[in-house]
Amino acid sequence: MNGAIDAARLADLLARLRARKPRVHCLLNTVVQERVADGLTALGAVPSMTSSPEEVAEFAARADALLVNLGTLTAERRQATETGVQAARAAGRPWVLDPVKCDVSAVRLAFARKLLAERPTIVKANEAERAVIEALDETAMIETGAADRLRLGDRALTLHNGHPWLAAVTGTGCLAGALVAGFAAVEADPLAAGAAGLAVLGIAAERAAERARGPGSFAVELLDALALLEPADLHQSLRIDHAGA
Amino acid sequence: MNGAIDAARLADLLARLRARKPRVHCLLNTVVQERVADGLTALGAVPSMTSSPEEVAEFAARADALLVNLGTLTAERRQATETGVQAARAAGRPWVLDPVKCDVSAVRLAFARKLLAERPTIVKANEAERAVIEALDETAMIETGAADRLRLGDRALTLHNGHPWLAAVTGTGCLAGALVAGFAAVEADPLAAGAAGLAVLGIAAERAAERARGPGSFAVELLDALALLEPADLHQSLRIDHAGA
Amino acid sequence: MNGAIDAARLADLLARLRARKPRVHCLLNTVVQERVADGLTALGAVPSMTSSPEEVAEFAARADALLVNLGTLTAERRQATETGVQAARAAGRPWVLDPVKCDVSAVRLAFARKLLAERPTIVKANEAERAVIEALDETAMIETGAADRLRLGDRALTLHNGHPWLAAVTGTGCLAGALVAGFAAVEADPLAAGAAGLAVLGIAAERAAERARGPGSFAVELLDALALLEPADLHQSLRIDHAGA
Repeated sequence: MNGAIDAARLADLLARLRARKPRVHCLLNTVVQERVADGLTALGAVPSMTSSPEEVAEFAARADALLVNLGTLTAERRQATETGVQAARAAGRPWVLDPVKCDVSAVRLAFARKLLAERPTIVKANEAERAVIEALDETAMIETGAADRLRLGDRALTLHNGHPWLAAVTGTGCLAGALVAGFAAVEADPLAAGAAGLAVLGIAAERAAERARGPGSFAVELLDALALLEPADLHQSLRIDHAGA
Repeated sequence: MNGAIDAARLADLLARLRARKPRVHCLLNTVVQERVADGLTALGAVPSMTSSPEEVAEFAARADALLVNLGTLTAERRQATETGVQAARAAGRPWVLDPVKCDVSAVRLAFARKLLAERPTIVKANEAERAVIEALDETAMIETGAADRLRLGDRALTLHNGHPWLAAVTGTGCLAGALVAGFAAVEADPLAAGAAGLAVLGIAAERAAERARGPGSFAVELLDALALLEPADLHQSLRIDHAGA
Repeated sequence: MNGAIDAARLADLLARLRARKPRVHCLLNTVVQERVADGLTALGAVPSMTSSPEEVAEFAARADALLVNLGTLTAERRQATETGVQAARAAGRPWVLDPVKCDVSAVRLAFARKLLAERPTIVKANEAERAVIEALDETAMIETGAADRLRLGDRALTLHNGHPWLAAVTGTGCLAGALVAGFAAVEADPLAAGAAGLAVLGIAAERAAERARGPGSFAVELLDALALLEPADLHQSLRIDHAGA
């Protein structure tokens, strides 16, 4: 009943996101707040970013999806995150967990595990982070890398879009998590939402790399490419493998 | 005695700002600190940004103007803001209030109202924020939108410069508030200072849009345009209506 | 035994940094975290940025060098900085102190002096900051300005690379400190590491200015230039004077 996850489906999701302009509340590290806000806006979503424990419930409850990113994690943001997750769950909103560098910090790993028990809609992690965490069956798991692997229960797929320069710009992984949250606001199947977020970022990166000279111009072109991306670009450029049981 | 607010007046203010290089202390959300600092610097002002309660009095007292922006508002920044406003008032400095999203957060709205009673020189708000706050008569009120409306007592004017891409880049509204604060440092009439800040941003945006492909390149070109803007550009491009009693 | 500090030496350090990809942990003001992270990454180093007191020991101990930047200094970041410096010292890692605007804030100046007693490997300061602090003999002192002066004991040198537009972009001084920390991770002589960091930034700025129209495009081109800089560029463009006892 989830339907095929192919270029037509993802192209439709891009059109739906642009029409709905979902609000994505981001509990995010302080390093890349501007870049992630710009990326969400460029694609067509509406970001908000407060991590104040006393404000987060109102913002998260009014948003269409919540991103929880554990970079530069403070005790205050842990508190705000717990409040925000409860507000999002109470409002029936999807939420995405990006357990940034939970393989380096013990307190961050413990907090990531606590959040995983709250059943995030989607977890996005790189290989090192993925190696130290486990999600419950109802959570979709995205493992990013040279290829991006997505799994939910016995469904799985692999995406091959992207460009090495994504790794030369700080925060593109954080932006991936935010875009996935944006698509989760307009698509109930977490696997399709995850695929859409990674596909638009990967294809935009390919377009941007054609025009860039280095990481500075690539970051600029990436925002332009996200704004200029059309559903037809997904038909033309999506590289997806279906695999798994 | 305030004189006409026209292109010649605003062109003179731009020249005066460049000559005086006013320091603007910004109590600002964490999302767009870099963009606002870059924008102030590009135009010719000098930003400082600490929101530490123990440091803010020294910075605010030495600055030529203070910006109070309520985005991503924490309890610590509320405390710093109260200290900073007192320091600015004691030093006789102008200060600008930007009550970001006070229509969404109850604690932020209560704090905005408390600050309004302290008689900010200028308030800059969008339509949704404006709908939930009232300023005292001695405060100039700027309501931004498709056109920007400014009012102080029975004086009023409307500015029509700008470009839709300003809304596609995070923090351009916050930058508007900072530029207004910069002009308030060199011009005692709050209505003229407000008009100068919005006019230079709007005209720079028009110039930037001529060279940009999307929101990424627009943000870059906007900084270049602020730096390259000349008094003559105000004569050529200012679109202003005088209205009100 | 330290060897000459000349273009060949600095070119070798650039190649070494690119090969080793040192991790630099940055305890940094909130304004320019993205720009500094992008600059380190563009050159070939790996940034991390958490200032959480409970996380900093793990990050600093795993890093190859530590940057302590006192901009937007809060009580929480002072606490994290003390922990981070102890972790770096215990692990035998070099650390760089950038006492941003310690000439403006009394609490910042007192904290800078406390840190100076902990014997940073290198201090980087502008003239106003330098005027209010003293380093111990075993600390290399960099004073930035129209020319950059470096001194360690009775050794001294002056670098003349750079471009006025560096002052038109927020955070390029902070980036200089971070690049110096990156080189300190791959070079035991603090004077050579300091010279390498300032030289690559200054030469990259010269390259960027050739392609830029204003401060927005200059900031973009600067990141591209850091990524594209080759050891041969140091041979071609380094302007260094040896002076002192």
